[in-house]
Amino acid sequence: MLIEDLARARGTGCEVILVGSAARGTWLSGDHDLDIFIGVSEGSSLVPALEIARRVAPKFEERYAEHAYVHAIFEGFELDLVPCYLVEDASRILSAVDRTPFHNRYVSRRIKGLEDDVLLLKQFMKGIGVYGSELKVGGFSGYLAELLVIRYGSFLGVLENAALWRPGEVIDLEDHSSRDHEDSLVVVDPVDPGRNVAAALALDRMFQFVAASRLFLNEPHIEFFFPNPIPPLSDQELCEQFAKRKSTLILLEFAAPDQVEDVVFPQLRKAEQSVRALLDRNGFSVLRSDADWHRGVPPEMREMGGSENSGLCGVIRMLFELEVASLPWVERMVGPPVWEAEHAKKFVSSHPEPPSGPYVEDGRLVVEVARKFVEASELLRTQVANLSLGRHLGPELRRGYKIYVGREILEIGDPEFRVFMARYFSARQRVC
Amino acid sequence: MLIEDLARARGTGCEVILVGSAARGTWLSGDHDLDIFIGVSEGSSLVPALEIARRVAPKFEERYAEHAYVHAIFEGFELDLVPCYLVEDASRILSAVDRTPFHNRYVSRRIKGLEDDVLLLKQFMKGIGVYGSELKVGGFSGYLAELLVIRYGSFLGVLENAALWRPGEVIDLEDHSSRDHEDSLVVVDPVDPGRNVAAALALDRMFQFVAASRLFLNEPHIEFFFPNPIPPLSDQELCEQFAKRKSTLILLEFAAPDQVEDVVFPQLRKAEQSVRALLDRNGFSVLRSDADWHRGVPPEMREMGGSENSGLCGVIRMLFELEVASLPWVERMVGPPVWEAEHAKKFVSSHPEPPSGPYVEDGRLVVEVARKFVEASELLRTQVANLSLGRHLGPELRRGYKIYVGREILEIGDPEFRVFMARYFSARQRVC
Repeated sequence: MLIEDLARARGTGCEVILVGSAARGTWLSGDHDLDIFIGVSEGSSLVPALEIARRVAPKFEERYAEHAYVHAIFEGFELDLVPCYLVEDASRILSAVDRTPFHNRYVSRRIKGLEDDVLLLKQFMKGIGVYGSELKVGGFSGYLAELLVIRYGSFLGVLENAALWRPGEVIDLEDHSSRDHEDSLVVVDPVDPGRNVAAALALDRMFQFVAASRLFLNEPHIEFFFPNPIPPLSDQELCEQFAKRKSTLILLEFAAPDQVEDVVFPQLRKAEQSVRALLDRNGFSVLRSDADWHRGVPPEMREMGGSENSGLCGVIRMLFELEVASLPWVERMVGPPVWEAEHAKKFVSSHPEPPSGPYVEDGRLVVEVARKFVEASELLRTQVANLSLGRHLGPELRRGYKIYVGREILEIGDPEFRVFMARYFSARQRVC
Repeated sequence: MLIEDLARARGTGCEVILVGSAARGTWLSGDHDLDIFIGVSEGSSLVPALEIARRVAPKFEERYAEHAYVHAIFEGFELDLVPCYLVEDASRILSAVDRTPFHNRYVSRRIKGLEDDVLLLKQFMKGIGVYGSELKVGGFSGYLAELLVIRYGSFLGVLENAALWRPGEVIDLEDHSSRDHEDSLVVVDPVDPGRNVAAALALDRMFQFVAASRLFLNEPHIEFFFPNPIPPLSDQELCEQFAKRKSTLILLEFAAPDQVEDVVFPQLRKAEQSVRALLDRNGFSVLRSDADWHRGVPPEMREMGGSENSGLCGVIRMLFELEVASLPWVERMVGPPVWEAEHAKKFVSSHPEPPSGPYVEDGRLVVEVARKFVEASELLRTQVANLSLGRHLGPELRRGYKIYVGREILEIGDPEFRVFMARYFSARQRVC
């Protein structure tokens, strides 16, 4: 193999290891990633390993996680060429990637004959939308899927056991039971007992898998693995949904920052919650919301001006479906109890001549005052830029954003967005 | 006096006692009630006393509380002629009215020189709307006002002390402290320690009085005693309020039952709460509500048919001001956690093909289903007759009711109703 040749030729003493699913025969077709680790002995420098990585493919870029690695496109594959230290024990690693060779060794020795079960499980997880430990998904990693198959012996064995999972479930293949974990699912890493392999698994992804497992065991169907693709909604279908649901939909749109998904998605989830909290705090009750990063660059985005990169990375879209989008001009303010004389006096004098009140209710003073925002859209338009929306999303939004209310959303033709809307309205998951 | 003559003439041995404020010189001008008790000795019959009562005035009717008494109109006064037993000790009374002579004696002996203070206090309480222990008001009785003046020595003394009241305040003139009471204000009856004279005082009436006392002590004004009458709202003023508040007002109207206020008002308050709960339960958030009994007989009420008496006793009107009057067609239903397999399965199968979902949220199953009532007015129209609205109000409503939404309320010209609306919108009380 090319890299091994390279390594030998330069006499660096580097060890080249093919890791990940490709090394174990548990590689999902359609994926085009190869992970190649270039190990140096503990105490020596990573530089020779990085130099080897740079020579593998003519076209590459250097990326950084805990340290530099090379990402290259080579004969249709995406290669990650990762320098790492070869340590003796997985508990003594210097960088997270140093653990990978241990995982590789552990799984390789136990997975023989179970490769098809792993493939079935991964494709099942992918089909129901819980595959991938990246922060966008918060699902099951490939390594986690492999450990589950090793633990339960087969694809169906995993599903049968998962069907009974409860929060706090512990799976400990080597009976380490060395440390307490507080996650919903704890899978003790056989090569590093202090680590929970399922730490990145979100509660809802875990139980989506549980519920889908139960349903599949009762009514198996090929669509669990290969769901029908969701077509984008047409203008007419979108209108029909608006007319049927009779809710108010508000869409917030702004340029995506030039950052990787694992940086953007946690901020996106938090920003979505901040906006929801703003709406709820002001009496506009939110039925449901969703947010996503769409890669198409809408023409109007370029006109919005903003940073050099804005628009080039696509757009962030946050959707809020409101039960209540407008409220009366008067708003109740409940003050202190009458018997707290000083507070009561302050409360009354700080609301001179209110539209209604002051009056006594359940022993407390109440006034009805003019509400600051009677329309949710107005609240959002004037206040969203003051929210804490994350280190990269905040500045990007403050450079410019657009708010679409109700049928204005039809202006957005982007097929990726129309698929997002179709998913949003259906919101159907395969559950028992 | 006529009755004494009567009693003597018939040799019944009955004792005639003028009780109440008239007997004590603490009689508010404008009131035209005289309470005359006709006492018989313990163990004998009340019949001779009732016979005397029947002979006092040519025009009278018999009424019933715990036992029969006579209500008569005589030379411009309303007379209540009440038979009672003359017991030795107020704790051994046979009927609530037997206690009255004891109250009369207790107050008469202590009130000399304080009559004007009592009159001021009563008029003050009347002016701010907290005078009267009848259930419509839930305020201070005349006897309670007298005891407060006796306790604190003067009108201003009462206000100064009331300004510091807290819930659970205890006033015990004779240091009986014989029993625990759980009311907001406890005034131990000096003649019957087991009884709280302020038992009928509602928490909010108590603290309206507290708050008004504080304000009066800071800024005394004649209007506390004699507030300017509130003029009925014109059509235009009503429209202006609707336009300004931007809430949705819904009015429920039906014939009043042929019952006394003390029977009707408790039912009315409970019925108001029942309707509020119905609205809230269905997502229609209520800003405020009010209810009243108006004596005018609207012409359309007669056309509604119904019982022989309906319309003759006036109408019950219940007003609900909504923050939210219409809601989306879809409604979230949160089901059991996924890990409760049996419940989860039942939940999903009981909601086949929902508009959205099922999906997993915070570990629970959620579906969005079609809401039964998207308009508050429709909910009320179809469901109000199924509510539990009280023994007399319920049947009366089921004979026929009318619902006015928003500007339809303008159809009601009744000046009593238009004053009610003026009071409702202002909702201003004299508070610190």
